[in-house]
Order: sequence, then structure tokens, then C-alpha cells
Amino acid sequence: MPGRVDFYFDYISGYAYFAWLRLQEICDRRGAELGVHPVLFAGLLDHWGQLGPAEIPPKREWAYKDAFRVAHLHGIELSCPKYHPFNPLLALRLSLPEVGGAEQRRVVAAIFRAGWGQGIDLGSRDELAGALDREGLDSRALIERASAPAAKEALRQGTERAVGRGVFGVPTTFVGDELFWGSDRMDHVELALDGRDPLDHARVREALARPRAADRRKARPAGDG
Amino acid sequence: MPGRVDFYFDYISGYAYFAWLRLQEICDRRGAELGVHPVLFAGLLDHWGQLGPAEIPPKREWAYKDAFRVAHLHGIELSCPKYHPFNPLLALRLSLPEVGGAEQRRVVAAIFRAGWGQGIDLGSRDELAGALDREGLDSRALIERASAPAAKEALRQGTERAVGRGVFGVPTTFVGDELFWGSDRMDHVELALDGRDPLDHARVREALARPRAADRRKARPAGDG
Repeated sequence: MPGRVDFYFDYISGYAYFAWLRLQEICDRRGAELGVHPVLFAGLLDHWGQLGPAEIPPKREWAYKDAFRVAHLHGIELSCPKYHPFNPLLALRLSLPEVGGAEQRRVVAAIFRAGWGQGIDLGSRDELAGALDREGLDSRALIERASAPAAKEALRQGTERAVGRGVFGVPTTFVGDELFWGSDRMDHVELALDGRDPLDHARVREALARPRAADRRKARPAGDG
Repeated sequence: MPGRVDFYFDYISGYAYFAWLRLQEICDRRGAELGVHPVLFAGLLDHWGQLGPAEIPPKREWAYKDAFRVAHLHGIELSCPKYHPFNPLLALRLSLPEVGGAEQRRVVAAIFRAGWGQGIDLGSRDELAGALDREGLDSRALIERASAPAAKEALRQGTERAVGRGVFGVPTTFVGDELFWGSDRMDHVELALDGRDPLDHARVREALARPRAADRRKARPAGDG
């Protein structure tokens, strides 16, 4: 009984690259269907009123270091994109199912590898075209479709649908309706796919229903005398 | 050559509980000195302009589920505090080195266990006193010291010092001057303590120095026509 997996990502995140590498193998081994959904991380941040890791200086530095450590320990080739952050819109639109069709997974694999494995500029139309061509994909046709108003609208709507499902960061992986955030929860994804999610949903409901006894404003030291 | 480890935490975070359980054993096995630093997470969030996980509804739900899964898979007893969020100020002040003195680690262990292992109300003076007493600690003397102006000031200054070191979240663990965020990077902490941090600092410096090619405002779909 292979499950359904949905993967939400933006190329801006190196962790999305790590998750992508692992998730394909997890799904393929089980014959699970894998939905691949590019979303604009900046749109998620705007919606939830959150900052991205690159917007908090010490978190940015830690995230780079962490990504290099994770890559080293897992034997992953990592070479960050030439500029970061970059404008990811064309890369994301190229990655829509509406644009790539049957080649969608090959397009996404080519862009991830070129950006995070080899360090091209993922905001450059020419460098994206080169990466697609090197994989035997038809970059001209893909870029033409990705530049049409329908693709722009599809990315916008896809990001909105992700928000509607509760996606607050990237990478996010759903197994059925269960959300898993981050690249380092793939062991949880595998358990869920195998029908062995250890979660006791009743305990979670009970914990979530417990009353709040403080909020941030009241907890400030300045406010308690 | 045992290293120096500094642990920054707030009881508001269940992940801090997980890190605490693991870190003591990591340090004790190596004879590494462990500095234990309570900080006000709300103060960190205010400083960096960030939201906490509990302030984004789907992230709150995911974080609870994730904590239960992690606890189950690692054989950790988890019973969330009776109210969440709660006002952590007394618990944090009780945990200052200036308050606990030689008993600081016992105080912290008692509070973590009572809150996250057994589910007491960590914002309640009476329940905190009971937890300390059950561990054979002198709750009256501790609460008296924790309620003095000097303790309030020490927590405030400790949180400011943490910000000055770049602490943006909890738990944060330093090995020497190297920052590690989160409870699930204890393998990185161990490598660093053993002098085997795989990080190539030159590559990190190079990656961090790469130019930014976009910012969030410009990457919005609405802005690109």
C-alpha cells in the first residue's frame, strides 16, 4: 500500500537540496507517488510574518556551517549557488508540473544539482538554460513555457495552496496529510510511509488543547518589575 | 584536552530538554566543562525580530508532533508542561549559577524533569518548589535568592550576553566559540569536542562572502510583472 508524498521546496534552501536527494530514493524504493511542488519561500515568510535564516546574521552563518557539516557527514557534494540569496522565480517556474510535464523531476534534479552541487547562479536565465541543456532537456521550450503568464500564476497559486496546507518553511514533506518540516526528519517520513508513525495523536490533541498561560509581551523582564 | 561547552536554554523549549539530557552525558564522558546559561527565549525573539514556533499555528502543531516522535524514537519520557507557553522567569532565575551555586545542575535537572518529563506547571511557584524539594534541594532558600533584584538583573544580562555571542534560538550549544543550534546537532557537538569538526572554515568564509543578488521585497511575484 504505497502512500502519497508531496514535497514543497524553494531552491533558496540548501536543506531542500538535501531532502530532495534523499526523498526520491525513499519514494522510489516503496513505489510511492511523489508530488513535486515549487513554492516561493519569500511568500511563505511574508504570509506567516517570519524571517528566513539568511535574514538573521548569526543564523545565516550557522546555517552555512551546518549545511557544510551535514553535506560532509552524508557524503553530499555541496557548492553553494554563486549568489545568495538570488531571485528564484524562473528556476521555480521551470520546476512546475505545468511547465516540465513528464520531465518535471529531471528539471528539478538538474537545477538542484547545478545550483547546490556545482554552484551556478540560479538566478541567471543563461546559466539555468546551460544546466538544463547539459541534462539533455530542451531549455528553450522550457524557458518559454516558464515565462508565460500561466506559469507565473501557477507558482503564485501553488504557494497559496501550500500556505493553505500549513506549509511554513522549506523543505516540507507531506505523507498523506501529515506534515514534516526540514531535511533531517526523513526517518519520520519513512516511518509514516511504512505505516509505522509512532505518534499518539490523542496525546498531541491533548497537549495542543492545554491552555496558554503567558504570551511574549507579558514574559518580558521589563514588564514584571 | 577536554573542551569547554556552554549551553543556552529556556524551559519553554522541549528541544532544550532533549539537548540537556544528551549534553550532560557528552560532557561528562569527556571531562568537558559545561557552562549552563538560562536565557529568556522571548528576549532573543524580540532582539532578532523573529517569531517563536508556538507563534505560527501550523509550526506549533508540527513542533508538538515532532517532539513526541523524537521522544518516542529516543526513549525519552515526554509529558509537556501543564500550560504552554508559560511565564518562565522564576524557573530561569532559579537556574542561574548565581542562585544555585554548586547545586545549579541539580536545579536545572529537577526543573526540566518536572516540566517536560512529568508535566507540572513550570510557571507556578508552588509547583516549582515541590519539584525542587522532591530532589532534596532547599526550595525556600533557592526561591528567595531567585526573587532578589540581583537574580532578575543576572537573567537580563545573561540574555544580553547570549545575544552578543549570536544566540538566536534555544537550545544553543557552544564548543569553544563555535555555535550549534538545536537538539539534533549533538553529533556535530561531539565531533567538535573531539577535535574532529569536519568544517572547512575557508569554504564557509568564501560562501558567506558571496554577493547577495536579491532580497525578499524584490523576489515577490507581485513585483516582477
